Amino acid sequence: MSDLLLNHLGGAWHAGRGAGTALFDPVLGNELVRVDATGLDLAGGFAFARDQGGAALRALTYRQRGELLGAIVKVLQANRDAYYEIATANSGTVKNDSAVDIDGAIYTTGVYAKLGATLGERRFLVDGEAASLAKDGVFQSQHLQVPTRGLSLFINAFNFPAWGLWEKAAPALLSGVPVVVKPATATAWLTQRMVKDVFDAGVLPAGALSVVCGSSAGLLDALQPLDVLSFTGSADTAQLIRSHAAVAQHSVRVNIEADSVNSALLLEGEAPGSAAFELLVKEVVREMTVKSGQKCTAIRRVFVPEALYGAAAEAISARLAKTTVGNPRNETVRMGALVSRTQLNAVREGLKGLQQQAEVLHDGARHALVDADPAVACCVGPTLLGSRTPDSAARLHDTEVFGPVATLLPYRDAAHALALVRRGGGSLVASVYGSDAGALATAALDLADHHGRVHVVSPDVAAAHSGHGNVMPQSLHGGPGRAGGGEELGGARALNFYHRRAAVQAAPAVLAALTA
Amino acid sequence: MSDLLLNHLGGAWHAGRGAGTALFDPVLGNELVRVDATGLDLAGGFAFARDQGGAALRALTYRQRGELLGAIVKVLQANRDAYYEIATANSGTVKNDSAVDIDGAIYTTGVYAKLGATLGERRFLVDGEAASLAKDGVFQSQHLQVPTRGLSLFINAFNFPAWGLWEKAAPALLSGVPVVVKPATATAWLTQRMVKDVFDAGVLPAGALSVVCGSSAGLLDALQPLDVLSFTGSADTAQLIRSHAAVAQHSVRVNIEADSVNSALLLEGEAPGSAAFELLVKEVVREMTVKSGQKCTAIRRVFVPEALYGAAAEAISARLAKTTVGNPRNETVRMGALVSRTQLNAVREGLKGLQQQAEVLHDGARHALVDADPAVACCVGPTLLGSRTPDSAARLHDTEVFGPVATLLPYRDAAHALALVRRGGGSLVASVYGSDAGALATAALDLADHHGRVHVVSPDVAAAHSGHGNVMPQSLHGGPGRAGGGEELGGARALNFYHRRAAVQAAPAVLAALTA
Repeated sequence: MSDLLLNHLGGAWHAGRGAGTALFDPVLGNELVRVDATGLDLAGGFAFARDQGGAALRALTYRQRGELLGAIVKVLQANRDAYYEIATANSGTVKNDSAVDIDGAIYTTGVYAKLGATLGERRFLVDGEAASLAKDGVFQSQHLQVPTRGLSLFINAFNFPAWGLWEKAAPALLSGVPVVVKPATATAWLTQRMVKDVFDAGVLPAGALSVVCGSSAGLLDALQPLDVLSFTGSADTAQLIRSHAAVAQHSVRVNIEADSVNSALLLEGEAPGSAAFELLVKEVVREMTVKSGQKCTAIRRVFVPEALYGAAAEAISARLAKTTVGNPRNETVRMGALVSRTQLNAVREGLKGLQQQAEVLHDGARHALVDADPAVACCVGPTLLGSRTPDSAARLHDTEVFGPVATLLPYRDAAHALALVRRGGGSLVASVYGSDAGALATAALDLADHHGRVHVVSPDVAAAHSGHGNVMPQSLHGGPGRAGGGEELGGARALNFYHRRAAVQAAPAVLAALTA
Repeated sequence: MSDLLLNHLGGAWHAGRGAGTALFDPVLGNELVRVDATGLDLAGGFAFARDQGGAALRALTYRQRGELLGAIVKVLQANRDAYYEIATANSGTVKNDSAVDIDGAIYTTGVYAKLGATLGERRFLVDGEAASLAKDGVFQSQHLQVPTRGLSLFINAFNFPAWGLWEKAAPALLSGVPVVVKPATATAWLTQRMVKDVFDAGVLPAGALSVVCGSSAGLLDALQPLDVLSFTGSADTAQLIRSHAAVAQHSVRVNIEADSVNSALLLEGEAPGSAAFELLVKEVVREMTVKSGQKCTAIRRVFVPEALYGAAAEAISARLAKTTVGNPRNETVRMGALVSRTQLNAVREGLKGLQQQAEVLHDGARHALVDADPAVACCVGPTLLGSRTPDSAARLHDTEVFGPVATLLPYRDAAHALALVRRGGGSLVASVYGSDAGALATAALDLADHHGRVHVVSPDVAAAHSGHGNVMPQSLHGGPGRAGGGEELGGARALNFYHRRAAVQAAPAVLAALTA
């Protein structure tokens, strides 16, 4: 039997009491490690996190907490090679794709480390200016943001075991709020290993960072009113979480990132082969293939003017045909595996569903696998679908197939295009391609209320733009409606979730004593 | 039969098709009007609000929408006498208490009218500075707040038919988001009348403001992902709302204000009869009696140093004894009725429950009613309870009796006091009384994460402070945990709920075109 990973809770390491659930190599099929959370004292562990971890973190200033994040960055950098090995084995990703997760985690943590320095020697944030509530300002209202006196529970997705932890933990720890992370079982190894490395380095106070690997049973029941809960995953699970007593009865603040049928939109007036056209084609292919399309932010719908449907189909397909798929250990391979057999089956089923309303423009099933056994490896080539009747193809707008899959859709005019994009019912990101700054701005503004992020690609930023699907810590990550309605990152905005806002109404002398 | 109030939806007035539900005078017992929402085309009406009302509002700038609010203020002022008559008849409130609702509504709307002028000729808000995402700033991220392309549905409470509408509608309309209000049936008359007056004055575009009186059946089912939902009322209903498919599946953004067991805390070192002591006593009595204690923000728990328990009980009781209760039409009456027989019974039941863990320090049942028939009028005198064992009296910390009821509780030292206040599990407001600015600031900061507002009363603000229970539009209204976890008002912060935040990542030229 493989090693059983330990859980860290209540300031100590605990083995689950059950037989455990195995994690596998999705390319080679062998068992790697096991996880189990049976028999953990969740209530006690959560209380320890709040009382010990929370109190220790809140006693520090933002500058000091930023230094803790800086120390974490060093730990993660020192163990980077081990993380890449785990990613290759457990996620089946090529090096460039592992980097999105691992180096993305390190970079994001570093950004919040630096933010801590700018927030300085304070233990709470001043929110705006004081407002006068009486003549001559003798009684005033001053808003504050203070760290919540609870813990933050992260229930994370399988596709980002590294970044998914740190993009949330960095703002939480900087805010003075302890973290309990429950990684998705399929890829829990990397998350657990990172927590272990940080623990072994003695960087954080006891109770500041805990990890529970295995079932999430009982975790939500252990939440209290001042805790916060962050979930990334399926819309179905999101619904269960919102209806759970902790949220419905105790108003536990919840942030959800669920499904998203993201769009890429080529504006009118761009000829086939033009710079904007080529930028769209390149970005669509990149988004379909990076991490085998297992990114919440990946492009799922591609909108082009009707006249360019054929040219776009051809250009994207031609690039996709060159994508080598298979064992990430082979250097000629550009795209590795899906994360598990379950996901491979889900993608195949999802493709069948979409094909009821779409034609196949490039068939991923025809890609031969490099260095991988098709009977074992969870690998599949990229598939481009298309439909010339986007208005009636409801499924293409509301179904996220979580793999290397996108659909090409033609539009009549700008208003039609924007309305079709909105058929996604709220998404994480839309990207817009064109060469007219005014038209790009108009489209971006029109799409802003349905998206957490609008990414605008014009020829002048061909080399500089950060990528449709890359989540930059400086920008908001989240989206309304189908995307779950959450808000993460966005620089200092990320701290809001871990703080409670309060208005203090008092005499100026009291307010002066408060912020002295 | 009394008049049937019409509903305004889809730009037109509609009578419900059912027999209707009667509204009563809680003092005299007679039927006033009826409401009914049976047979309304909710889906059609909501679509009209989004498509017609929303589009018309979003086409205006903040300055122009602020002018609409200014025009609404004039309409409300012109009809003020009628509103007072309705309040007396339907809410059973004395003039001063009607003012809290009616003049509070007008004042709050006026504050947002003025805010519109400061936001100027824009149709969206710029959120912070652009952040560079590439060398030399050739690619940048700019956050925006844009009006959501949905509607705002308000499901409101019976205690503030006027203010409860406008404290939400003013920020919504200023944000460019249409409003559908469903007032609590018991006091729906005043809300409906205000909407009718604004409609008759022709102030707002069609579909910008709708009112549905009667059952809330089907309202949530008609919500779509970009809509927002604001609920004020019981924790039980809040739980149903959070679990509803609109919220759980479509991520409809929801703001909830539920129960709250608010606190008043006299700090250590204040002698009986001292200025701070007297300020506490006066404020407790005011909070218990204004609107017969039917305020979400009213003081429910009063914390004093152990040595002052007797003196505080005596001083508060002496003031309460002078409170005349009865028919609000009689000028000698200071406190009118509860809103309904249902509420009267709920308060009596609630008192019985609290008395299992508390002694009666002043018995409201002994107050004779002035000009009112005890068999008919929903009037009850104010009751002060007390317990010398606050640690073991769980019910006193977690039960909100929504009437003229508070409980006096002694504490040993500052840490004990703060821990007891937090036993409320999250409240709308705590007030702190004392004369040492440093001690007041320390207590306020410690309580900030459990409260949306901390109100600090020192002798120097005796005449100037805005009151524990008065919700000033400049300050946040809401609270974590038991209080529902919502955020309302707080000046411009109120607009956040009606906007969607998005990061636009683009070349500087595109961002310049955006904000030009």
